[in-house]
Amino acid sequence: MKIKTLTIVGVGLIGGSIGLAASRRGVAERVLGTSRYQASLDRARSLGIIDGGYLEVVPAVHQADVAVFCTPVDRIPAQILEAAPGCSPGTLLTDAGSTKAAIVHAVESRMPAGVAFVGSHPLAGSEKRSLEFADADLFKDRLTVVTQTAHTEPASLERTIDFWQALGSRVRVMHPEDHDKAVALTSHLPHLLASALAGILPGSLRDLTATGFRDTTRVAAGDPSIWTGVFLQNKTAVLHALDLYGESLDRFRHALENEDAAGLDQLLSYAKKVRDALGS
Amino acid sequence: MKIKTLTIVGVGLIGGSIGLAASRRGVAERVLGTSRYQASLDRARSLGIIDGGYLEVVPAVHQADVAVFCTPVDRIPAQILEAAPGCSPGTLLTDAGSTKAAIVHAVESRMPAGVAFVGSHPLAGSEKRSLEFADADLFKDRLTVVTQTAHTEPASLERTIDFWQALGSRVRVMHPEDHDKAVALTSHLPHLLASALAGILPGSLRDLTATGFRDTTRVAAGDPSIWTGVFLQNKTAVLHALDLYGESLDRFRHALENEDAAGLDQLLSYAKKVRDALGS
Repeated sequence: MKIKTLTIVGVGLIGGSIGLAASRRGVAERVLGTSRYQASLDRARSLGIIDGGYLEVVPAVHQADVAVFCTPVDRIPAQILEAAPGCSPGTLLTDAGSTKAAIVHAVESRMPAGVAFVGSHPLAGSEKRSLEFADADLFKDRLTVVTQTAHTEPASLERTIDFWQALGSRVRVMHPEDHDKAVALTSHLPHLLASALAGILPGSLRDLTATGFRDTTRVAAGDPSIWTGVFLQNKTAVLHALDLYGESLDRFRHALENEDAAGLDQLLSYAKKVRDALGS
Repeated sequence: MKIKTLTIVGVGLIGGSIGLAASRRGVAERVLGTSRYQASLDRARSLGIIDGGYLEVVPAVHQADVAVFCTPVDRIPAQILEAAPGCSPGTLLTDAGSTKAAIVHAVESRMPAGVAFVGSHPLAGSEKRSLEFADADLFKDRLTVVTQTAHTEPASLERTIDFWQALGSRVRVMHPEDHDKAVALTSHLPHLLASALAGILPGSLRDLTATGFRDTTRVAAGDPSIWTGVFLQNKTAVLHALDLYGESLDRFRHALENEDAAGLDQLLSYAKKVRDALGS
């Protein structure tokens, strides 16, 4: 895959890592970036992430052969719909948002002729959102979900798959709703649980936390302005995952209330087996 | 602090790290270790953790000036009560268990004359339990709780504090019940939450987990045979912590059900503030 101009809308951790990976792997000849802050654009330039920076989304996207929207999920649809009309025929638009159904359905049937949108979600990143943590290998051997619906043109789907693979990622094609249900459990629920736990730590016990508390709550350090949008866009699936989780918690509670050592051991052993299978 | 013979009952991650730290820092002239498995003793010897190994607890403890019980919490009281009668006058017994009230109250009033027991809990370690991860710096700058009750002799308390400080640890003195309430929230609850989450991951979604799921469930890889005992010994405080957590989860749920963006943002922002204050 060879892209003449790649535009990254929102140069934070994910956008910055896309820029670095695209340059280092020779995927893009030129990388443009957008941010609301000139300082971020200057920093992205000095880190070698972008060749040119724009405070406005539209002019940067209009120069692109491929544009990736890496902004918070509640801003992505409007930005795509605003930028698409002036794009050259053949332009591919995609995104890196943690929800897919709301974005894909708001956007895909409203693309002008010759401009394609295919949704993406690289399962990479961390609670650290800053450009300073941008990493050319962030996607290496990680999974990116690329969405397919009845509206998705096969050629654009292939191009999107090629793009993420060129950045080092593995790719799985999923329907947006299937993606959202899956990540409600694997990503959005853990964030909610971690935040709910961090929220009950009294200051007086801070000194009594060790690696267990710190690991379990690590994602709670994520940016609230990003996560509020994610939770709201994926409300139904997250609430369903929370119900499932409540049932699981109840099983532990009942075993403990009944001092059921064998039952507790069984629940803990199953959880350990699942966790061990994930690796570190 | 200079100990002639330090005996470590149970040479796993914690016991092994105590042995390494005591040798490297010149705290003990000789370190004895016990394990139910000859292979563990051989390995501990070859790693330089112990100078002599015993399959039986009693003869190893009878040679000790200081003995630290690093076995699962449900085995510690019986082991101490069995070993204490033949100890030399002046022997200090302590432990490294994650619960304190059940152990301290079962043991402290039944010590023979001249033998002291003071409870300890180093807040260190990880889901990795094996001797292979033993680390001379495991306790460095970490906190160890040392317990004090009406039965605790001041001189033995001081000696216990000195011991952990000599291994590099900071020390906080707490009443056993206060300790148990605190760690119910900061350690036992996170373990339960992580296990309850790991327990609902279908195999088909394993590939869709990223750092968020992995961090949040990491402690669920801990040894069930250790944790079942911890939960049962600290049942009341863990159930209370679980109630508090349920209320916290409900606040997130209600904000999400009501699509209360400001409320969600507020909950997430508070959790982030708490988590940020803990550092990495």
